[in-house]
Amino acid sequence: MEKERGLLIVLSGPSGVGKGTVRKAIMNEDTDLQYSISMTTRQPREGEMDGVDYFFKSKEEFEKMIADNKLLEWAEFVGNYYGTPVDYVEQTLSEGKDVLLEIEVQGAMQVRKHFPNGVFIFLMPPSLSELRSRITNRGTETDDVINNRMKVAKEEIELMENYDYVVENDRVELACERIKAIVTAEHYRKDRLVDKYKKLLEVE
Amino acid sequence: MEKERGLLIVLSGPSGVGKGTVRKAIMNEDTDLQYSISMTTRQPREGEMDGVDYFFKSKEEFEKMIADNKLLEWAEFVGNYYGTPVDYVEQTLSEGKDVLLEIEVQGAMQVRKHFPNGVFIFLMPPSLSELRSRITNRGTETDDVINNRMKVAKEEIELMENYDYVVENDRVELACERIKAIVTAEHYRKDRLVDKYKKLLEVE
Repeated sequence: MEKERGLLIVLSGPSGVGKGTVRKAIMNEDTDLQYSISMTTRQPREGEMDGVDYFFKSKEEFEKMIADNKLLEWAEFVGNYYGTPVDYVEQTLSEGKDVLLEIEVQGAMQVRKHFPNGVFIFLMPPSLSELRSRITNRGTETDDVINNRMKVAKEEIELMENYDYVVENDRVELACERIKAIVTAEHYRKDRLVDKYKKLLEVE
Repeated sequence: MEKERGLLIVLSGPSGVGKGTVRKAIMNEDTDLQYSISMTTRQPREGEMDGVDYFFKSKEEFEKMIADNKLLEWAEFVGNYYGTPVDYVEQTLSEGKDVLLEIEVQGAMQVRKHFPNGVFIFLMPPSLSELRSRITNRGTETDDVINNRMKVAKEEIELMENYDYVVENDRVELACERIKAIVTAEHYRKDRLVDKYKKLLEVE
Protein backbone atom coordinates (compact mmCIF):
# COMPACT_ATOMS: atom_id res chain seq x y z
CA MET A 1 0.00 0.00 0.00
CA GLU A 2 1.31 3.40 -0.95
CA LYS A 3 2.52 5.40 2.02
CA GLU A 4 0.42 8.45 2.83
CA ARG A 5 2.29 11.67 2.20
CA GLY A 6 3.13 13.91 5.15
CA LEU A 7 1.77 17.42 5.53
CA LEU A 8 3.74 20.52 4.63
CA ILE A 9 3.37 23.07 7.44
CA VAL A 10 4.49 26.60 6.57
CA LEU A 11 5.04 29.00 9.46
CA SER A 12 5.39 32.59 8.34
CA GLY A 13 4.46 36.12 9.35
CA PRO A 14 5.79 39.66 9.43
CA SER A 15 9.43 40.36 10.24
CA GLY A 16 10.13 40.44 13.93
CA VAL A 17 7.03 38.52 14.97
CA GLY A 18 9.13 35.75 16.52
CA LYS A 19 8.85 32.99 13.89
CA GLY A 20 12.29 31.59 14.73
CA THR A 21 11.62 31.49 18.47
CA VAL A 22 8.28 29.73 18.02
CA ARG A 23 9.76 27.27 15.51
CA LYS A 24 12.63 26.39 17.87
CA ALA A 25 10.20 25.94 20.76
CA ILE A 26 8.06 23.55 18.67
CA MET A 27 11.07 21.56 17.50
CA ASN A 28 12.38 21.29 21.08
CA GLU A 29 9.20 19.54 22.09
CA ASP A 30 8.41 15.92 21.47
CA THR A 31 6.97 16.21 18.00
CA ASP A 32 6.89 14.19 14.80
CA LEU A 33 7.49 17.31 12.72
CA GLN A 34 10.64 17.41 10.62
CA TYR A 35 12.21 20.84 10.29
CA SER A 36 13.42 21.81 6.84
CA ILE A 37 16.67 23.71 7.35
CA SER A 38 17.06 26.76 5.14
CA MET A 39 20.07 27.47 2.99
CA THR A 40 21.87 30.83 3.05
CA THR A 41 24.90 32.64 1.73
CA ARG A 42 25.22 34.86 4.78
CA GLN A 43 28.04 34.28 7.27
CA PRO A 44 27.27 32.10 10.31
CA ARG A 45 26.69 34.14 13.46
CA GLU A 46 28.31 33.29 16.78
CA GLY A 47 27.09 29.83 17.82
CA GLU A 48 25.31 28.97 14.57
CA MET A 49 26.12 25.56 13.11
CA ASP A 50 26.06 24.38 9.51
CA GLY A 51 23.28 21.82 9.05
CA VAL A 52 21.57 22.87 12.29
CA ASP A 53 20.66 26.53 11.99
CA TYR A 54 21.25 26.82 8.24
CA PHE A 55 23.10 25.16 5.43
CA PHE A 56 25.80 27.75 4.80
CA LYS A 57 26.72 27.93 1.10
CA SER A 58 28.79 30.11 -1.16
CA LYS A 59 27.11 32.49 -3.55
CA GLU A 60 28.16 30.25 -6.47
CA GLU A 61 26.72 27.13 -4.88
CA PHE A 62 23.46 28.93 -4.15
CA GLU A 63 23.16 30.30 -7.68
CA LYS A 64 23.73 26.82 -9.09
CA MET A 65 20.84 25.56 -6.89
CA ILE A 66 18.63 28.31 -8.33
CA ALA A 67 19.70 27.48 -11.89
CA ASP A 68 19.09 23.75 -11.31
CA ASN A 69 15.61 24.45 -9.93
CA LYS A 70 16.55 22.85 -6.62
CA LEU A 71 14.93 25.47 -4.40
CA LEU A 72 11.30 25.45 -3.39
CA GLU A 73 11.53 29.18 -2.69
CA TRP A 74 14.30 31.68 -2.37
CA ALA A 75 14.82 35.40 -1.82
CA GLU A 76 17.60 37.93 -1.44
CA PHE A 77 17.84 40.14 1.65
CA VAL A 78 20.53 42.78 2.11
CA GLY A 79 22.88 41.07 -0.32
CA ASN A 80 22.44 37.49 0.93
CA TYR A 81 20.42 34.61 -0.46
CA TYR A 82 18.01 32.53 1.64
CA GLY A 83 16.11 29.52 0.33
CA THR A 84 14.53 26.12 0.92
CA PRO A 85 16.09 23.06 -0.77
CA VAL A 86 13.26 21.15 -2.46
CA ASP A 87 14.77 17.64 -2.27
CA TYR A 88 14.64 17.36 1.52
CA VAL A 89 11.01 18.54 1.58
CA GLU A 90 9.89 16.15 -1.17
CA GLN A 91 11.79 13.18 0.25
CA THR A 92 10.50 13.70 3.79
CA LEU A 93 6.88 14.19 2.72
CA SER A 94 7.02 11.05 0.60
CA GLU A 95 8.22 9.12 3.66
CA GLY A 96 4.92 10.11 5.28
CA LYS A 97 6.46 12.63 7.67
CA ASP A 98 5.22 16.17 8.24
CA VAL A 99 7.66 18.95 7.33
CA LEU A 100 7.84 22.36 9.00
CA LEU A 101 9.13 25.37 7.03
CA GLU A 102 9.76 28.66 8.80
CA ILE A 103 10.09 31.30 6.11
CA GLU A 104 9.40 34.91 5.17
CA VAL A 105 6.05 35.95 3.75
CA GLN A 106 7.41 36.35 0.19
CA GLY A 107 8.72 32.77 0.26
CA ALA A 108 5.49 31.41 1.71
CA MET A 109 3.55 32.64 -1.31
CA GLN A 110 6.04 30.91 -3.65
CA VAL A 111 5.55 27.68 -1.69
CA ARG A 112 1.76 27.95 -1.93
CA LYS A 113 2.03 27.68 -5.73
CA HIS A 114 3.80 24.32 -5.50
CA PHE A 115 1.93 23.01 -2.46
CA PRO A 116 -1.64 24.29 -2.61
CA ASN A 117 -2.56 21.65 0.01
CA GLY A 118 0.10 22.81 2.45
CA VAL A 119 -1.00 24.20 5.82
CA PHE A 120 -0.12 27.89 5.90
CA ILE A 121 0.05 29.49 9.35
CA PHE A 122 0.38 33.25 9.75
CA LEU A 123 2.04 34.17 13.04
CA MET A 124 0.58 37.47 14.15
CA PRO A 125 2.09 40.07 16.44
CA PRO A 126 0.00 40.43 19.61
CA SER A 127 -0.24 44.18 19.22
CA LEU A 128 -2.87 43.81 16.49
CA SER A 129 -5.48 42.56 18.94
CA GLU A 130 -4.75 45.46 21.25
CA LEU A 131 -4.93 47.89 18.40
CA ARG A 132 -8.55 48.82 18.67
CA SER A 133 -8.36 49.66 22.35
CA ARG A 134 -5.16 51.61 21.78
CA ILE A 135 -6.68 53.48 18.88
CA THR A 136 -9.89 54.23 20.71
CA ASN A 137 -7.87 55.47 23.71
CA ARG A 138 -6.47 57.93 21.26
CA GLY A 139 -6.05 60.76 23.74
CA THR A 140 -2.71 59.19 24.64
CA GLU A 141 -1.36 58.80 21.09
CA THR A 142 -0.38 61.24 18.39
CA ASP A 143 -2.19 61.05 15.05
CA ASP A 144 1.03 59.93 13.38
CA VAL A 145 1.44 56.98 15.71
CA ILE A 146 -2.19 55.98 15.21
CA ASN A 147 -2.04 56.33 11.44
CA ASN A 148 1.14 54.30 11.26
CA ARG A 149 -0.34 51.53 13.40
CA MET A 150 -3.45 51.43 11.25
CA LYS A 151 -1.34 51.18 8.11
CA VAL A 152 0.81 48.36 9.47
CA ALA A 153 -2.24 46.50 10.75
CA LYS A 154 -4.00 46.77 7.40
CA GLU A 155 -0.96 45.49 5.54
CA GLU A 156 -0.74 42.55 7.92
CA ILE A 157 -4.40 41.72 7.44
CA GLU A 158 -3.92 41.72 3.69
CA LEU A 159 -1.08 39.23 4.05
CA MET A 160 -3.11 37.05 6.38
CA GLU A 161 -5.79 36.59 3.69
CA ASN A 162 -3.47 34.13 1.91
CA TYR A 163 -3.08 31.81 4.90
CA ASP A 164 -5.17 28.99 6.36
CA TYR A 165 -4.64 29.89 10.00
CA VAL A 166 -3.78 32.99 11.98
CA VAL A 167 -2.04 32.40 15.32
CA GLU A 168 -1.27 35.20 17.72
CA ASN A 169 2.21 35.10 19.23
CA ASP A 170 1.22 36.55 22.58
CA ARG A 171 3.24 33.91 24.44
CA VAL A 172 5.60 31.46 22.78
CA GLU A 173 4.23 28.42 24.62
CA LEU A 174 0.63 29.33 23.73
CA ALA A 175 1.56 29.86 20.08
CA CYS A 176 3.26 26.43 20.10
CA GLU A 177 0.19 24.71 21.57
CA ARG A 178 -2.03 26.29 18.93
CA ILE A 179 0.26 25.26 16.10
CA LYS A 180 0.51 21.69 17.39
CA ALA A 181 -3.30 21.50 17.59
CA ILE A 182 -3.53 22.78 14.01
CA VAL A 183 -1.11 20.11 12.76
CA THR A 184 -3.08 17.38 14.56
CA ALA A 185 -6.43 18.67 13.33
CA GLU A 186 -5.26 18.95 9.71
CA HIS A 187 -4.58 15.21 9.64
CA TYR A 188 -8.30 14.63 10.23
CA ARG A 189 -9.70 17.02 7.63
CA LYS A 190 -12.22 15.20 5.49
CA ASP A 191 -10.69 16.54 2.28
CA ARG A 192 -7.42 14.80 3.13
CA LEU A 193 -9.06 11.53 4.20
CA VAL A 194 -11.92 10.88 1.84
CA ASP A 195 -9.58 10.03 -1.05
CA LYS A 196 -7.65 7.66 1.17
CA TYR A 197 -10.81 5.82 2.12
CA LYS A 198 -12.04 5.76 -1.45
CA LYS A 199 -8.72 4.26 -2.56
CA LEU A 200 -8.98 1.76 0.26
CA LEU A 201 -12.12 0.41 -1.35
CA GLU A 202 -10.65 0.22 -4.85
CA VAL A 203 -9.89 -3.47 -4.72
CA GLU A 204 -9.94 -5.79 -7.72
CA MET B 1 -17.16 45.52 21.66
CA GLU B 2 -19.44 42.78 20.42
CA LYS B 3 -18.63 39.43 21.95
CA GLU B 4 -17.26 36.91 19.49
CA ARG B 5 -19.67 34.03 18.93
CA GLY B 6 -18.68 30.56 20.06
CA LEU B 7 -18.21 27.66 17.66
CA LEU B 8 -20.86 25.02 17.10
CA ILE B 9 -19.20 21.58 17.16
CA VAL B 10 -21.31 18.73 15.80
CA LEU B 11 -20.20 15.20 16.62
CA SER B 12 -21.96 12.59 14.57
CA GLY B 13 -21.38 9.28 12.80
CA PRO B 14 -22.99 5.93 12.10
CA SER B 15 -25.07 4.18 14.75
CA GLY B 16 -23.01 2.21 17.22
CA VAL B 17 -19.75 4.05 16.51
CA GLY B 18 -19.52 5.24 20.12
CA LYS B 19 -20.58 8.90 19.80
CA GLY B 20 -22.06 8.97 23.31
CA THR B 21 -18.99 7.43 24.91
CA VAL B 22 -16.63 9.86 23.17
CA ARG B 23 -18.86 12.84 24.00
CA LYS B 24 -19.01 11.85 27.70
CA ALA B 25 -15.25 11.40 27.80
CA ILE B 26 -14.71 14.88 26.29
CA MET B 27 -17.15 16.51 28.69
CA ASN B 28 -15.52 14.77 31.68
CA GLU B 29 -12.24 16.46 30.82
CA ASP B 30 -11.36 20.02 31.62
CA THR B 31 -12.85 21.70 28.61
CA ASP B 32 -14.60 24.97 27.77
CA LEU B 33 -17.13 23.14 25.60
CA GLN B 34 -20.78 23.39 26.62
CA TYR B 35 -22.82 20.28 25.91
CA SER B 36 -26.24 20.82 24.42
CA ILE B 37 -28.52 18.27 26.06
CA SER B 38 -30.97 16.61 23.69
CA MET B 39 -34.69 16.38 24.29
CA THR B 40 -36.58 13.10 23.98
CA THR B 41 -39.97 11.53 24.53
CA ARG B 42 -38.55 8.12 25.36
CA GLN B 43 -38.63 6.85 28.94
CA PRO B 44 -35.52 7.46 31.08
CA ARG B 45 -33.38 4.36 31.42
CA GLU B 46 -32.01 3.17 34.76
CA GLY B 47 -29.72 5.89 36.13
CA GLU B 48 -30.58 8.55 33.49
CA MET B 49 -31.42 11.98 34.88
CA ASP B 50 -33.62 14.71 33.45
CA GLY B 51 -31.48 17.69 32.46
CA VAL B 52 -28.28 15.63 32.54
CA ASP B 53 -28.65 12.83 30.02
CA TYR B 54 -31.72 14.23 28.26
CA PHE B 55 -34.59 16.58 28.81
CA PHE B 56 -37.43 14.09 29.12
CA LYS B 57 -40.67 15.48 27.67
CA SER B 58 -44.15 14.23 26.85
CA LYS B 59 -45.13 13.69 23.23
CA GLU B 60 -47.41 16.74 23.44
CA GLU B 61 -44.65 18.97 24.79
CA PHE B 62 -42.28 17.79 22.07
CA GLU B 63 -44.82 18.32 19.29
CA LYS B 64 -45.44 21.84 20.57
CA MET B 65 -41.66 22.50 20.35
CA ILE B 66 -41.74 21.30 16.72
CA ALA B 67 -44.78 23.46 15.94
CA ASP B 68 -43.15 26.50 17.59
CA ASN B 69 -39.96 25.99 15.58
CA LYS B 70 -37.97 25.61 18.79
CA LEU B 71 -35.85 22.66 17.64
CA LEU B 72 -32.65 22.96 15.67
CA GLU B 73 -33.11 19.40 14.46
CA TRP B 74 -35.35 16.51 15.39
CA ALA B 75 -36.11 12.97 14.30
CA GLU B 76 -38.30 10.04 15.26
CA PHE B 77 -36.78 6.64 16.06
CA VAL B 78 -38.88 3.60 16.92
CA GLY B 79 -41.80 5.70 18.04
CA ASN B 80 -39.89 8.28 20.10
CA TYR B 81 -38.84 11.81 19.29
CA TYR B 82 -35.29 13.12 19.75
CA GLY B 83 -34.26 16.72 19.12
CA THR B 84 -32.03 19.69 19.95
CA PRO B 85 -33.61 22.78 21.56
CA VAL B 86 -32.45 25.79 19.56
CA ASP B 87 -32.60 28.40 22.37
CA TYR B 88 -29.81 26.88 24.45
CA VAL B 89 -27.54 26.60 21.41
CA GLU B 90 -28.17 30.19 20.27
CA GLN B 91 -27.88 31.64 23.76
CA THR B 92 -24.63 29.82 24.55
CA LEU B 93 -22.99 30.67 21.22
CA SER B 94 -23.90 34.33 21.66
CA GLU B 95 -22.18 34.28 25.07
CA GLY B 96 -19.00 33.37 23.16
CA LYS B 97 -18.93 29.75 24.35
CA ASP B 98 -18.44 26.72 22.12
CA VAL B 99 -21.33 24.26 22.03
CA LEU B 100 -21.03 20.51 21.44
CA LEU B 101 -23.91 18.58 19.86
CA GLU B 102 -23.83 14.80 19.70
CA ILE B 103 -26.48 13.73 17.23
CA GLU B 104 -27.43 11.23 14.55
CA VAL B 105 -26.34 11.74 10.95
CA GLN B 106 -29.83 12.78 9.78
CA GLY B 107 -29.93 15.52 12.43
CA ALA B 108 -26.41 16.69 11.58
CA MET B 109 -27.43 17.48 8.02
CA GLN B 110 -30.39 19.53 9.30
CA VAL B 111 -28.02 21.49 11.55
CA ARG B 112 -25.64 22.15 8.64
CA LYS B 113 -28.39 24.13 6.90
CA HIS B 114 -28.75 26.52 9.84
CA PHE B 115 -25.06 26.60 10.81
CA PRO B 116 -22.98 26.33 7.64
CA ASN B 117 -19.98 27.54 9.67
CA GLY B 118 -20.34 24.84 12.30
CA VAL B 119 -17.56 22.30 12.71
CA PHE B 120 -18.88 18.91 11.61
CA ILE B 121 -16.95 15.89 12.85
CA PHE B 122 -17.69 12.41 11.54
CA LEU B 123 -16.74 9.73 14.04
CA MET B 124 -15.66 6.69 12.07
CA PRO B 125 -15.67 3.06 13.14
CA PRO B 126 -12.12 1.70 13.23
CA SER B 127 -12.99 -1.27 11.07
CA LEU B 128 -12.99 0.89 7.93
CA SER B 129 -9.25 1.34 8.03
CA GLU B 130 -8.76 -2.39 8.40
CA LEU B 131 -11.14 -3.05 5.59
CA ARG B 132 -8.66 -3.25 2.78
CA SER B 133 -6.42 -5.76 4.49
CA ARG B 134 -9.43 -7.83 5.50
CA ILE B 135 -10.80 -7.73 1.98
CA THR B 136 -7.49 -8.55 0.37
CA ASN B 137 -7.03 -11.45 2.82
CA ARG B 138 -10.20 -12.72 1.33
CA GLY B 139 -9.39 -16.39 1.65
CA THR B 140 -10.74 -16.18 5.18
CA GLU B 141 -14.02 -14.41 4.37
CA THR B 142 -17.11 -15.45 2.43
CA ASP B 143 -18.14 -13.33 -0.55
CA ASP B 144 -21.26 -12.25 1.33
CA VAL B 145 -19.28 -10.94 4.26
CA ILE B 146 -16.94 -9.06 1.93
CA ASN B 147 -19.76 -7.61 -0.16
CA ASN B 148 -21.61 -6.48 2.93
CA ARG B 149 -18.52 -4.79 4.35
CA MET B 150 -17.89 -3.04 1.06
CA LYS B 151 -21.49 -1.80 0.97
CA VAL B 152 -21.38 -0.49 4.54
CA ALA B 153 -18.00 1.16 3.98
CA LYS B 154 -19.19 2.87 0.82
CA GLU B 155 -22.30 4.21 2.54
CA GLU B 156 -20.17 5.56 5.37
CA ILE B 157 -17.81 7.26 2.94
CA GLU B 158 -20.76 8.94 1.25
CA LEU B 159 -21.93 10.29 4.61
CA MET B 160 -18.44 11.48 5.48
CA GLU B 161 -18.39 13.71 2.39
CA ASN B 162 -20.68 16.17 4.19
CA TYR B 163 -18.39 16.66 7.16
CA ASP B 164 -15.33 18.83 7.84
CA TYR B 165 -13.36 16.22 9.77
CA VAL B 166 -13.22 12.45 9.98
CA VAL B 167 -11.97 11.02 13.27
CA GLU B 168 -11.44 7.33 13.79
CA ASN B 169 -12.76 5.97 17.08
CA ASP B 170 -10.06 3.35 17.52
CA ARG B 171 -9.58 4.30 21.17
CA VAL B 172 -11.84 6.69 23.08
CA GLU B 173 -8.96 8.71 24.56
CA LEU B 174 -7.32 9.12 21.14
CA ALA B 175 -10.60 10.18 19.55
CA CYS B 176 -11.01 12.75 22.38
CA GLU B 177 -7.53 14.18 21.83
CA ARG B 178 -8.17 14.56 18.11
CA ILE B 179 -11.51 16.27 18.66
CA LYS B 180 -10.02 18.67 21.21
CA ALA B 181 -7.22 19.55 18.77
CA ILE B 182 -9.82 20.18 16.05
CA VAL B 183 -11.79 22.54 18.32
CA THR B 184 -8.61 24.46 19.21
CA ALA B 185 -7.44 24.66 15.60
CA GLU B 186 -10.81 25.87 14.33
CA HIS B 187 -10.53 28.95 16.53
CA TYR B 188 -7.45 29.96 14.52
CA ARG B 189 -8.80 29.44 11.01
CA LYS B 190 -8.18 32.52 8.95
CA ASP B 191 -11.75 32.57 7.64
CA ARG B 192 -13.03 32.96 11.21
CA LEU B 193 -10.48 35.61 12.18
CA VAL B 194 -10.01 37.88 9.21
CA ASP B 195 -13.44 39.49 9.67
CA LYS B 196 -12.71 40.05 13.35
CA TYR B 197 -9.47 41.84 12.52
CA LYS B 198 -11.09 43.84 9.76
CA LYS B 199 -13.81 44.96 12.19
CA LEU B 200 -11.14 45.81 14.70
CA LEU B 201 -9.79 48.38 12.26
CA GLU B 202 -13.18 49.90 11.46
CA VAL B 203 -12.80 52.84 13.80
CA GLU B 204 -14.29 56.23 13.04
